Amino acid sequence: MGLFITFEGPEGSGKTTQMHLLAQYLQARGYDPLITREPGGTRIGDRVRAILLDPIHEEMGAPTEFLLFSAARAQHVQELIAPHLAQGGIVLCDRFADSSLAYQGYGYELDLEAVRSITEFATGGLVPDVSFYLDLPVETGLRRKVGGHGDDWNRMEQKGVDYHQRVRAGYLAMTSQDPDRWVVIDATASVSEIQVAIRRAIEGRGLLPSGRRVG
Amino acid sequence: MGLFITFEGPEGSGKTTQMHLLAQYLQARGYDPLITREPGGTRIGDRVRAILLDPIHEEMGAPTEFLLFSAARAQHVQELIAPHLAQGGIVLCDRFADSSLAYQGYGYELDLEAVRSITEFATGGLVPDVSFYLDLPVETGLRRKVGGHGDDWNRMEQKGVDYHQRVRAGYLAMTSQDPDRWVVIDATASVSEIQVAIRRAIEGRGLLPSGRRVG
Repeated sequence: MGLFITFEGPEGSGKTTQMHLLAQYLQARGYDPLITREPGGTRIGDRVRAILLDPIHEEMGAPTEFLLFSAARAQHVQELIAPHLAQGGIVLCDRFADSSLAYQGYGYELDLEAVRSITEFATGGLVPDVSFYLDLPVETGLRRKVGGHGDDWNRMEQKGVDYHQRVRAGYLAMTSQDPDRWVVIDATASVSEIQVAIRRAIEGRGLLPSGRRVG
Repeated sequence: MGLFITFEGPEGSGKTTQMHLLAQYLQARGYDPLITREPGGTRIGDRVRAILLDPIHEEMGAPTEFLLFSAARAQHVQELIAPHLAQGGIVLCDRFADSSLAYQGYGYELDLEAVRSITEFATGGLVPDVSFYLDLPVETGLRRKVGGHGDDWNRMEQKGVDYHQRVRAGYLAMTSQDPDRWVVIDATASVSEIQVAIRRAIEGRGLLPSGRRVG
């Protein structure tokens, strides 16, 4: 039933670049992966994404934010991801449910059990076959985020750094709880080194569909 | 801590009219109730409402719809309802969480336990002090909905009627499970008869704040 691969990690970790490099590799091998991202991926999801990203919405509460991500995810799974997997296809997704666990659950310190059960409702229980976590120290990620403006990142409020520390700790907790699914990669390595590690993990696990190469 | 009153029932039951008549009565008695509605009630909720009501979104799945209602509700509670109640105010709300239980939970036959627990997450556990259910036979409601065009309603697909039967059965199940909170009113009665019953229920339960009349 297809192969579902997700890419997780902070902004600045290079996960989007790595996803597209893996897609090229798979295409060269005759596969036709579906490449998608969260939030968004569908017409309804894109409208939810616009609400989430609108900087005017400073009043948005943490539960509201999490439920909006979950709504977009439910539509994404039902309309796009699940049908593609059901046809035996490969799906590459830039962020998925683990991002909500990390950023809303651990980051905002919401009730993790509630976040997990709502996520299971939204995804219909769909879990990736393999998830790459591109790990980066928080300070490095924030420096990359401001585009190489040196120590500009430390003008961000301390709460911002604490938040990102909780997010990273959350990801590391999740990867250690489910090591069969997760591949943790040091995102301070070079782009090509990281891509080699990703391809090796995919090949080493024998995950690629060997029959009909539909996706 | 304030008084939270909700109005539930099908379109055509007259619940919105009754809410406004009760508001006038309360205002005449010196109260200043907050009058609001779902989905919506906040800037973010109104943007979610626009997605929910846009007829172009035929592809929207039932879980997506429920999660969008829940997101709007979470913001509504946090930003508007809970602060007003915390100040000792009265809140009158045209539809609340029970609408999701009835229309998405019972109507779409979603997992009711999941729907209840997600609702508890979205509302932070807030439950109305009293809820009026304006009950109407499904056929009567559908006839009123088409604006008195006689038997036009039966051009609606049979599935539509079945859906509304499940919604009504859901409301009746909820009211019988929690008779202390619910007041079931026969919505085939006249507007003034219904309003008398609503005022009597409010007065009879001694619910009105007797101290500082802030809201």
